[in-house]
Amino acid sequence: MIKVAILGYGNIGRAAEEAIRAASDMELAGIFHHNDCLDNLDADVVLLCTPTREVPKYAAVLAAKGICTVDSFDIHGQISGLREQLNPLCETNKTTSIISAGWDPGTDSMVRALLMAMAPKGITYTNFGPGRSMGHSVAAKAIAGVKNALSMTIPLGTGVHRRMVYIELEKGADFKTVEAALLKDDYFAHDETHVIQVDDVDALNNVAHGVHLTRSGVSGETHNQRFEFNMEINNPALTGQVMVSCARAVYRMKARGQYGCKTMIEIAPVDMLAGTVEENIKALV
Amino acid sequence: MIKVAILGYGNIGRAAEEAIRAASDMELAGIFHHNDCLDNLDADVVLLCTPTREVPKYAAVLAAKGICTVDSFDIHGQISGLREQLNPLCETNKTTSIISAGWDPGTDSMVRALLMAMAPKGITYTNFGPGRSMGHSVAAKAIAGVKNALSMTIPLGTGVHRRMVYIELEKGADFKTVEAALLKDDYFAHDETHVIQVDDVDALNNVAHGVHLTRSGVSGETHNQRFEFNMEINNPALTGQVMVSCARAVYRMKARGQYGCKTMIEIAPVDMLAGTVEENIKALV
Repeated sequence: MIKVAILGYGNIGRAAEEAIRAASDMELAGIFHHNDCLDNLDADVVLLCTPTREVPKYAAVLAAKGICTVDSFDIHGQISGLREQLNPLCETNKTTSIISAGWDPGTDSMVRALLMAMAPKGITYTNFGPGRSMGHSVAAKAIAGVKNALSMTIPLGTGVHRRMVYIELEKGADFKTVEAALLKDDYFAHDETHVIQVDDVDALNNVAHGVHLTRSGVSGETHNQRFEFNMEINNPALTGQVMVSCARAVYRMKARGQYGCKTMIEIAPVDMLAGTVEENIKALV
Repeated sequence: MIKVAILGYGNIGRAAEEAIRAASDMELAGIFHHNDCLDNLDADVVLLCTPTREVPKYAAVLAAKGICTVDSFDIHGQISGLREQLNPLCETNKTTSIISAGWDPGTDSMVRALLMAMAPKGITYTNFGPGRSMGHSVAAKAIAGVKNALSMTIPLGTGVHRRMVYIELEKGADFKTVEAALLKDDYFAHDETHVIQVDDVDALNNVAHGVHLTRSGVSGETHNQRFEFNMEINNPALTGQVMVSCARAVYRMKARGQYGCKTMIEIAPVDMLAGTVEENIKALV
């Protein structure tokens, strides 16, 4: 049994707990909160389900103890830097960590890599939604006069997105003033954005999300090779499950001496699956 | 530069040649035919583009010489057995081979594995086509009275397929007799099959193929997670390209000491891509 602990217990931590309980080869080694002491931890793998900005700190502390971690660090421009920072720490302490394990970055990254291998020249478009953007919702909520906000990402194709922003106003706030401030905000200024006033943002809340990923490319000298990956999913449930599947992979990689900090495009799909390699070859290949 | 040789020069061998020439990190180390001598081969990797039944023999001969191979062995029920046979040979001779590298088995297998990691419970359906089935075309051609035949696979959903069989008759053959014999053949008896007489089968020939792969499953305890992978492709061009991308992976795995016989679900997607891991993380993760 792989002993998996959870650090941080929001939406993702709760979903990860369910996925651990559903896995026949894992046991829950504890749920910890941000300020808990990690000194006497008895776990093979710790899932870092904290806010993304706290991930680097905890990942470094645990790597230094030789404990495997899996996180869903999702600031795309900083992933390579985080890997560079954690990699020597993992190697020195003979351990392995998987960073940015979720669906984007994560499984979408694996699909993009696979499509590059199938058609090395061409363009991949990743279209997100319809679904809630956490970052944009937080940015909208920060505008003066906004009590609560929900920013939905709507895919328009070729990686272009519309923002549908539902806002609940503070008492006395003026809609037109708030709308103008929001449309000028850097989060919204570059996309087609619609601001809609509602009485109760919470009544609209829904963790559904989606991806529509396309590639048209060239295999060898043959053009017009067309590929498409779509999903419509519960966002935290999928993120939690992917992290738990990566817990299995990180445990196996460490056991084989594959130390270091890895992103999902660096792991073999079968390492994420319960059962033996032979069983999975018979079932899936 | 990775030196890649091709053994067998049919549709797949030709497509593989194009993919090698398009790769900036590879050079063509020669094209060999079935009876050529492999004794003085100067290649890092040999692509086995022979008929599938000849693959095990050549893969074993080359593994014994410590040379990496990639093949597209496609008899699903025999893949695990072939791996078991080649694995100790590769390990003894400190080399690596990738078997069943194509799109199914191959990249579809990786997608099926990835979807299992994302939603461990549920059903995956792989729907093939529209496209030519080589096996069914050969079986139809073997019926007495058939001069030439093309069997198209038409997807009906949930992994059920229709067979559209276009036949050109020998002089004096009776269509009704041929049709009855074909419908009783084990290749066709279990599927909805339509037999159509045409004057010229060759005029219908087209290497287009397609896949529509779906999974509805459970992440943790959350049901109704929906996934879909589609492609519409030139069949030999994609197979050749995937084999060439796997040549890069097998070369790197051997260099790292990851010896043995592997299927595509056992390889990390990034190993198939030109460029460094860091470059690919920045571009794809």
